[in-house]
Amino acid sequence: MRAVDIIIKKRDKGELTREEIRFFVNGLSTGRIPDYQAAAWAMAVLLNGMTARETTDLTLAMAQSGEVLDMSDVVKIAVDKHSTGGVGDKTTLVVLPAVAACGLPVGKMSGRGLGFSGGTLDKMESIPGYRVDLSIEEFERQLKEIGVVLCGQSKNLAPADGKLYSLRDVTGTVQSIPLIASSVMSKKIAGGAHAVVLDVKVGNGAFMTNLNEARELAALMVKIGELAGRKVVTLLSDMNQPLGCAVGNALEVREAIDTLHGDGPADFREHCLHVAAHMLVVGEVASTLEAGHALVERSLADGSAFAKFQQLVQAQGGDVSYVDNPDTFPRARLVQTVDAPRSGYVERVQAKIVGEASVALGAGRAKKTDPVDHAVGFVIHHKVGDKVRAGEPLFTVHANDQKKLEEAAASVLAAHELDDFPVPPMPLFYE
Amino acid sequence: MRAVDIIIKKRDKGELTREEIRFFVNGLSTGRIPDYQAAAWAMAVLLNGMTARETTDLTLAMAQSGEVLDMSDVVKIAVDKHSTGGVGDKTTLVVLPAVAACGLPVGKMSGRGLGFSGGTLDKMESIPGYRVDLSIEEFERQLKEIGVVLCGQSKNLAPADGKLYSLRDVTGTVQSIPLIASSVMSKKIAGGAHAVVLDVKVGNGAFMTNLNEARELAALMVKIGELAGRKVVTLLSDMNQPLGCAVGNALEVREAIDTLHGDGPADFREHCLHVAAHMLVVGEVASTLEAGHALVERSLADGSAFAKFQQLVQAQGGDVSYVDNPDTFPRARLVQTVDAPRSGYVERVQAKIVGEASVALGAGRAKKTDPVDHAVGFVIHHKVGDKVRAGEPLFTVHANDQKKLEEAAASVLAAHELDDFPVPPMPLFYE
Repeated sequence: MRAVDIIIKKRDKGELTREEIRFFVNGLSTGRIPDYQAAAWAMAVLLNGMTARETTDLTLAMAQSGEVLDMSDVVKIAVDKHSTGGVGDKTTLVVLPAVAACGLPVGKMSGRGLGFSGGTLDKMESIPGYRVDLSIEEFERQLKEIGVVLCGQSKNLAPADGKLYSLRDVTGTVQSIPLIASSVMSKKIAGGAHAVVLDVKVGNGAFMTNLNEARELAALMVKIGELAGRKVVTLLSDMNQPLGCAVGNALEVREAIDTLHGDGPADFREHCLHVAAHMLVVGEVASTLEAGHALVERSLADGSAFAKFQQLVQAQGGDVSYVDNPDTFPRARLVQTVDAPRSGYVERVQAKIVGEASVALGAGRAKKTDPVDHAVGFVIHHKVGDKVRAGEPLFTVHANDQKKLEEAAASVLAAHELDDFPVPPMPLFYE
Repeated sequence: MRAVDIIIKKRDKGELTREEIRFFVNGLSTGRIPDYQAAAWAMAVLLNGMTARETTDLTLAMAQSGEVLDMSDVVKIAVDKHSTGGVGDKTTLVVLPAVAACGLPVGKMSGRGLGFSGGTLDKMESIPGYRVDLSIEEFERQLKEIGVVLCGQSKNLAPADGKLYSLRDVTGTVQSIPLIASSVMSKKIAGGAHAVVLDVKVGNGAFMTNLNEARELAALMVKIGELAGRKVVTLLSDMNQPLGCAVGNALEVREAIDTLHGDGPADFREHCLHVAAHMLVVGEVASTLEAGHALVERSLADGSAFAKFQQLVQAQGGDVSYVDNPDTFPRARLVQTVDAPRSGYVERVQAKIVGEASVALGAGRAKKTDPVDHAVGFVIHHKVGDKVRAGEPLFTVHANDQKKLEEAAASVLAAHELDDFPVPPMPLFYE
């Protein structure tokens, strides 16, 4: 078998066999297939597509390119969650401890910020001392002991995906639905997941900007799950405006803590309840979504979800005093509130612009090696559909640089569109 | 400007600007753009195409990536020829000295065998001592002194094309009409050609297997010529059966020498006359094709073309005694004639199979580093349309290994198809 023949077959719209896909993924892992062949192949896949069967074979080959975890002796049904990423998406910070508090042990490996989209690891690192680089032994021990883990992706899991992903990033081959689906699913399968709740974000602040693409990705992931013997539940959720109010690492952790205390923005709270309820159902802790909802609400009300979050932070070396007194989080030097220039109904708060402005403030990275400023970001005071009066606070900027503050404030002001007539609120979920 | 954005633009079927193409080609030359980005870009070009304007910009950018020769003080109109490659195509060996003998100085840089297709340099190296690696100074001096040069491609000309070509070879991106056209034309322009006669081969033994593709390639090259201010004349010639009778390096040199003496197979002789006449017309030595034909015929009849070939071989260090007495060429150890198994009319002699069998005998390379056996190959005794009787010689195999001989003989026998009813001969040219 030759790599070039496999490239040519995909170039000519052929369907690759399982053996061809395995050969290619193995070659990628071992370095026998050079980057330039993988790049040409990825472009051919992006332009000519792959069937669900090919995508499943790619997923499994990448999952098996490294260690594959087995959590069966720790948890009966290992449930994972994944969000395709957006602006203000701190769902994991609430959902993981809540679900664990309801009796479903859950260990999750997360990522860092990518483009305008924030990253769970960056958020958790706002808490001084919090360690994200656990060994697999530490992961298993902590899951067994306290039933919740939230750390970085192990380099030993799905290394072929890691290689392919970094290559896609620089060769214009990120936006391929089969490649996105196999990348996500290979990491979940290598992490030992029996069931996965996938939150596919759709809107201008997501990687999938239209509903058809998002549906296609969701359907493909469900199909991969079927073919690979994993239960996959997908949700399509809105990412046209930021989720919740806070955007920026420490600001988002504070909003997550509020939510764990039973407060927090209504949209974000509702989103978390929905995701967590689905996890409890696939984890067979709740028999219906309604029962799952009720369990999660109780965990927020009785403090057990928050207590689980405290345990999580402590177990991973974080300073719990910050969690207990969120006012101790270092604040940005410059905090400025921007008022509504006129009265009206909020028609749009463009999530992508808010995300980009947040990266520009230092909350995300332009290059992989850039440091992250945990203190900076925004609090958006209104959601689409809200009525605002001229002079009322529209959003607050947290910055450490006057020039950056002014630029970011101007962008985010422009991201808000007001209309004279009432505007319906955005849906949280699409179907 | 970022390479990844240029890749994405082409991936999304955009038309690249001249600046974007120059940026990409410069990056390729200097190594600032890594191979994997070039590979992804080449696949996007192959699948999404390029306009004539983009292809011309690519051609000129590659031509200008190294030295650009100027032969204006040696020859008024620098005429080059190029064949897209085939089986038994030793046209250059006859046409170059013939045209030079008619008073049009001509210097040509050729290539080596590629796949099942033979290479002019490999053929010329059958003559002991013949040097193909001339410096540019040697090239110019020899062109000035004897009016004919036939050597290898200088590494200083169009180096970006060299890099891209070797990458295309291993990434399944050879078969792109814009990339083929720009590769050929960039080398011709860098070599200082004012006019080019392009022989586009079409048939199962050519890179273009159907007439539409061949026409498309020819039209694109003419268009590049127009946009780049070079005169380009294209011929579409048949490559379903081998050209002439001999296939294999020394065997082809001997057939070329026969032709220079006024003999040689009728189809090959006619082909050479046609190509050479076109060169004389674009070089303004003959005013009409008929006049060009007549001049070339005279050069073959009066020995001046052969004398020019002797000069060429001598100037480049070759042993002229081989040219004078072709029987001194080393013969393969095993020479076996295969007879027609039945009577009939020759319906097909599949050029590709003959080319592949010739490579298998050692006349070409499976890998770039393989040595070439100059003695081995075939002499095909009949052309499509010929009537043969059972037991009459069909072809002769020249081999240095009994097992290879048997396999090659079986393949080439299978490449011959005989029919009971008369079959028309193949056309030499299509339009």
